[in-house]
Amino acid sequence: MTARKIALVVTARPSYARIKTALQAIQGHADLQLQLIVTASALLDRYGSIVNYIEQDGFKIAARVFVVLEGENLLTSAKSTGLGVMELATSFDNLRPDIVVTVADRYETLATAVAASYMNIPLAHVQGGEVTGSVDEKVRHAVSKLANLHFASTDGAAERLIRMGEDPRTVFVTGCPSIDLAAGVLENPALDFDPFQKYGGVGAVNELSDGYVVVMQHPVTTQISDSRAQITETLEAVEAMDMPALWFWPNVDAGSDDISRGIRIFREKGQGNFKNMEPEDFLRLVYNSKAIIGNSSMGIRECSFLGVPAVNVGDRQAGRERGANVIDVPCEMKAIQSAVRTQLGHGRYEQASIYGDGKAGQRIADLLATAELNIAKQITY
Amino acid sequence: MTARKIALVVTARPSYARIKTALQAIQGHADLQLQLIVTASALLDRYGSIVNYIEQDGFKIAARVFVVLEGENLLTSAKSTGLGVMELATSFDNLRPDIVVTVADRYETLATAVAASYMNIPLAHVQGGEVTGSVDEKVRHAVSKLANLHFASTDGAAERLIRMGEDPRTVFVTGCPSIDLAAGVLENPALDFDPFQKYGGVGAVNELSDGYVVVMQHPVTTQISDSRAQITETLEAVEAMDMPALWFWPNVDAGSDDISRGIRIFREKGQGNFKNMEPEDFLRLVYNSKAIIGNSSMGIRECSFLGVPAVNVGDRQAGRERGANVIDVPCEMKAIQSAVRTQLGHGRYEQASIYGDGKAGQRIADLLATAELNIAKQITY
Amino acid sequence: MTARKIALVVTARPSYARIKTALQAIQGHADLQLQLIVTASALLDRYGSIVNYIEQDGFKIAARVFVVLEGENLLTSAKSTGLGVMELATSFDNLRPDIVVTVADRYETLATAVAASYMNIPLAHVQGGEVTGSVDEKVRHAVSKLANLHFASTDGAAERLIRMGEDPRTVFVTGCPSIDLAAGVLENPALDFDPFQKYGGVGAVNELSDGYVVVMQHPVTTQISDSRAQITETLEAVEAMDMPALWFWPNVDAGSDDISRGIRIFREKGQGNFKNMEPEDFLRLVYNSKAIIGNSSMGIRECSFLGVPAVNVGDRQAGRERGANVIDVPCEMKAIQSAVRTQLGHGRYEQASIYGDGKAGQRIADLLATAELNIAKQITY
Amino acid sequence: MTARKIALVVTARPSYARIKTALQAIQGHADLQLQLIVTASALLDRYGSIVNYIEQDGFKIAARVFVVLEGENLLTSAKSTGLGVMELATSFDNLRPDIVVTVADRYETLATAVAASYMNIPLAHVQGGEVTGSVDEKVRHAVSKLANLHFASTDGAAERLIRMGEDPRTVFVTGCPSIDLAAGVLENPALDFDPFQKYGGVGAVNELSDGYVVVMQHPVTTQISDSRAQITETLEAVEAMDMPALWFWPNVDAGSDDISRGIRIFREKGQGNFKNMEPEDFLRLVYNSKAIIGNSSMGIRECSFLGVPAVNVGDRQAGRERGANVIDVPCEMKAIQSAVRTQLGHGRYEQASIYGDGKAGQRIADLLATAELNIAKQITY
Repeated sequence: MTARKIALVVTARPSYARIKTALQAIQGHADLQLQLIVTASALLDRYGSIVNYIEQDGFKIAARVFVVLEGENLLTSAKSTGLGVMELATSFDNLRPDIVVTVADRYETLATAVAASYMNIPLAHVQGGEVTGSVDEKVRHAVSKLANLHFASTDGAAERLIRMGEDPRTVFVTGCPSIDLAAGVLENPALDFDPFQKYGGVGAVNELSDGYVVVMQHPVTTQISDSRAQITETLEAVEAMDMPALWFWPNVDAGSDDISRGIRIFREKGQGNFKNMEPEDFLRLVYNSKAIIGNSSMGIRECSFLGVPAVNVGDRQAGRERGANVIDVPCEMKAIQSAVRTQLGHGRYEQASIYGDGKAGQRIADLLATAELNIAKQITY
Repeated sequence: MTARKIALVVTARPSYARIKTALQAIQGHADLQLQLIVTASALLDRYGSIVNYIEQDGFKIAARVFVVLEGENLLTSAKSTGLGVMELATSFDNLRPDIVVTVADRYETLATAVAASYMNIPLAHVQGGEVTGSVDEKVRHAVSKLANLHFASTDGAAERLIRMGEDPRTVFVTGCPSIDLAAGVLENPALDFDPFQKYGGVGAVNELSDGYVVVMQHPVTTQISDSRAQITETLEAVEAMDMPALWFWPNVDAGSDDISRGIRIFREKGQGNFKNMEPEDFLRLVYNSKAIIGNSSMGIRECSFLGVPAVNVGDRQAGRERGANVIDVPCEMKAIQSAVRTQLGHGRYEQASIYGDGKAGQRIADLLATAELNIAKQITY
Repeated sequence: MTARKIALVVTARPSYARIKTALQAIQGHADLQLQLIVTASALLDRYGSIVNYIEQDGFKIAARVFVVLEGENLLTSAKSTGLGVMELATSFDNLRPDIVVTVADRYETLATAVAASYMNIPLAHVQGGEVTGSVDEKVRHAVSKLANLHFASTDGAAERLIRMGEDPRTVFVTGCPSIDLAAGVLENPALDFDPFQKYGGVGAVNELSDGYVVVMQHPVTTQISDSRAQITETLEAVEAMDMPALWFWPNVDAGSDDISRGIRIFREKGQGNFKNMEPEDFLRLVYNSKAIIGNSSMGIRECSFLGVPAVNVGDRQAGRERGANVIDVPCEMKAIQSAVRTQLGHGRYEQASIYGDGKAGQRIADLLATAELNIAKQITY
Repeated sequence: MTARKIALVVTARPSYARIKTALQAIQGHADLQLQLIVTASALLDRYGSIVNYIEQDGFKIAARVFVVLEGENLLTSAKSTGLGVMELATSFDNLRPDIVVTVADRYETLATAVAASYMNIPLAHVQGGEVTGSVDEKVRHAVSKLANLHFASTDGAAERLIRMGEDPRTVFVTGCPSIDLAAGVLENPALDFDPFQKYGGVGAVNELSDGYVVVMQHPVTTQISDSRAQITETLEAVEAMDMPALWFWPNVDAGSDDISRGIRIFREKGQGNFKNMEPEDFLRLVYNSKAIIGNSSMGIRECSFLGVPAVNVGDRQAGRERGANVIDVPCEMKAIQSAVRTQLGHGRYEQASIYGDGKAGQRIADLLATAELNIAKQITY
């Protein structure tokens, strides 16, 4: 038997972190050959050139695919998706993979799924079946409808995929590979690096010794005109606290320019702000924080496993399964402030395994090597 | 209240026929303004320039969008979809519609849906929730997952959309507008034109007076390499009959070149073969035939209402709701021949209203004028 | 020294024929590695899939690049050029050639030149410096302005390139490789195949034994609306003759649909009409004809060497250097008819070497192997 | 007579400044209708959203065309050009201009020219016939070869166009519209605004009262790998001076990220650095400076008229006609330093009119209104 060729498309900082252990397991699997495609913001300097970390981690890159049309508005979002379909189709035509793997719910995720579907290549989808707000919600389920194999993070997600009409024989609960990474970090959780020195920003690690919070807020693409107002509420709530805050820049998305401008205004305060970080460093930083604030799924997903208190702001994660570590608040300064205070009072939560037990990557690789491959599918009812 | 601007994207011969009465109802509606976008094979000479019929029917075309990348293989299918997203996004940006309407399950349907979704324009989908084979099956459900309003053809389709997690308040059983057209034809069903004279082909209308069959077979895009073999089985079955056969050319799709080549081989037999026809002429021709043979959905959809016997070949329509008028056969010469014989023996069936009562177009227009518009949506479970 | 990688882009029937001996010489050269890229109409079925002949001739294809946007109008011509730039850039990025070679003056020629220029790859241009009408004239000189090495067909062309400000050290008179092919055919010029049997069309080779003419007329892209009227003049002139005529279909270009429709109308007359032919077969057929009629450059270029009488219709070749074998006429039925009569009366002309001596291919390969490579250039005055 | 529709494509900060008076003259002309298309970096936030200044200046924007593919490497430069052709073709198809005007020598200039040429729209080129280094040199002359009307800045440029084979009846010496703007500024040359307050940067206008220099260095696209080293030489030379320096960011181009990174390193020094400025403010700032340093054409073009001493670094402007105000130096720290010292010692130069007398805009508008329009052209020899 020749090894199955697995084309996996990495698109952005979080999607790399969330798939890294699967990449390692695929690369290490005797019956699989990894074809790693890097695209979108993962290639771009101003989003931290995650591609460099990928190579440092020992992965060989099979194709670099540029698809981000500058403009960061709704029109360029749509056009970048179209470009993604065109350009990824060329890569698939060159690489001739046996399976294409697409992760989560971004526009590149959809572009990957569309290209693979029309090229009759079996499509595997990681992180399908979850529920959130934003345009991501639509896109995630649309991708599931194009996918032939589903690697779900939670029991709830798998159940939902089956209710949506996916064939139960194609739905697998693997857990989320992001939890694998968190599990690895928990083996040695100390903050063993100076984030300012390693990643820039104004400050020093010892200023963090009395505690700090992490803030990460993405634009909500269906509420695009409010992006700046939304980040301002969060920024003001954080500013009012008497604790250092480490800001992370949003993904490239319609609306992210507004958020970036918002962050820049507060930058002079002497707190760190970061474009990017190696995933394990980021997890370690979050693990050692007093709380995570914003609307990143990390607060819900990885932090449930890490036990880090999360203040989840606004609708972006609405509907997502969550553990006890999360307090949901509307995008209002006072509400955010009050929830942060509650979380700081509570301290670390117990570990929850909703999103996985730390072995998702290996399970995904094993399934890619053994699952029956089809391109035809039909709704089950 | 200003009239809602409705951008409706017409892509190919069947999608025009199937949406024509809705176009008329939208155009005639006091609270709606039609923005008709014509794209893909509907613009192309070698697929019959359906755009000319559209203009003759009195519709003003708001944009002509060229998206078909020549090659007719899987790679160009994928790339045409990507181009469709890019180019339709420009049209939406220029026209600024309040709602985008997309029809059925073709690659341009998906391109339309993706562009509208990322541009935060509410999306209405006509003919969602149905079940078939081929890549269309995946695409149709993916489009439903991106859509905000669903105009289903059948009770079964609506039920399926709701089971898939669509909000019941956004799912409407309108019937299929194609049935409206069939209902119109039934008011005056005589074959009142000479198809050879009006549309070319070798033959004369009086040669049809003792009966004829209509043949229409599309490539099955997930079985692309078998396209030619499949059409040959049908062609040989038809050739063995002692009755004129009128052939229709397939839509532009990966694999259609193979089918076209197959048809050409049989063309010298002196039977008609047609690229295109005005939808009403086509329905009249089908109504007056002894049977329809092939894998077009028309055999199942319109012919259930018209009572025309249909021999449905192969998997392409697998799973679609059907009436008593359909005999399903595998793609084998003998099986096709035998089913045709049975159908010729049976003659016309009773009218069935599974796919609508002939008033779908008006219902769709009324709903477009009044439905609550949202771009955010969330799966219901 | 490692072999220089030479990416040569073949786009259409005539451009393959005209570069074939150079391809052979590059492939056979110890210091060169051929990277053959096939694109545009050379890939398409309805233009005769020249790609199949290329493979039969023993060339390995490094990339197949689909760029023809269907529609055959001015808008799709422009867009296909843009797509060509995008898609060829991907190929160059994958293949990393040391030199890109572009041929003649088509839109793909320009797309190749633009992509290579912005990717800082030295560009060699074959057939620069010639003069004609149509948009090709503009494009040819624009490509020369982007090129770093010039392989001119004639002394006049080389002189013109130098007057245009190209550095004389980069301009070489190699002759046109199309003449190499013609020289090869002259070694054994008998019509040794039946064109109808080998390439289709209604007729038989023995019907040609009393003489025949070859007709080939391309649309003039700056006179697009007249395409059909123009072909009609030629068609009627040819129809009025009492001699079989072999028609060849035009290249894909804005306006070619009109010409194709024109040809189809006359097709029932029982004369051959061909989409494509192996270059040597075509040359042999032309060599044995009584005259070539139309606006193809073959009448001027190869036929000067073959001594075949040519009736050159209209402006498309205006300004091109020509030998005694050419009579120029306006696009009027009577004028064409009268010139054809004169040429049939004259018979074969003497061989002229304006466009080369039959050794261009080898000269080009040698220059590609040895020429100094630069990407920077500056006008000489 | 209906007014001629003039589609003019503005792409970046310098191309707007250089064409602004022509835009005003076209807009004010009774026989012309301006169709202003804004594209490329002129639309982008991180290059200063010049589009906002354009609207504040009272121009109505007919189309916004996004074409910049992120990545800022050679591959994305080529692809952005291809995208530009595709997207501008759509705009031309919508706007149906009688003439397209393209300015200078950037990739969008070429994209504009290619799209107009294949759409059979007469093309006017502003600033053709000049000589420089870099890929711009190739592109400028290629654009001239596609153009039907030439509006040259200098006698030398016009002469060169004619020597290149352009029809003398289509070549006009209008002067450069950038000089019009400079002439306007000279009517009231005082530095009447605080650049720090109006455009950001660390500093105050009074710190400039003892003199300052302006620095502007673009990447040389044919020497891409040296971009950072080159800017460093300039930066160190400037740093060693005892005078405030105002930095301007380069255009978006392959290599500009390297330059931007270079500038950022020096940013902490407390000197201003600017992304963008209204053209008149910029001219005023330059006029009042002691010298301009770098490789911008402004040092040669506008500064010859303004009499500002210029230190021109490296090859980018090699070959361009220049006045007495320019000292050319290689890209070496010591050479730059020494030339700056010489220029500071010399002080302001006399006004030179090589690049125009300040009435170019009106001349261009008048010619657009009256010139004979053709799309066909042929080299004159």
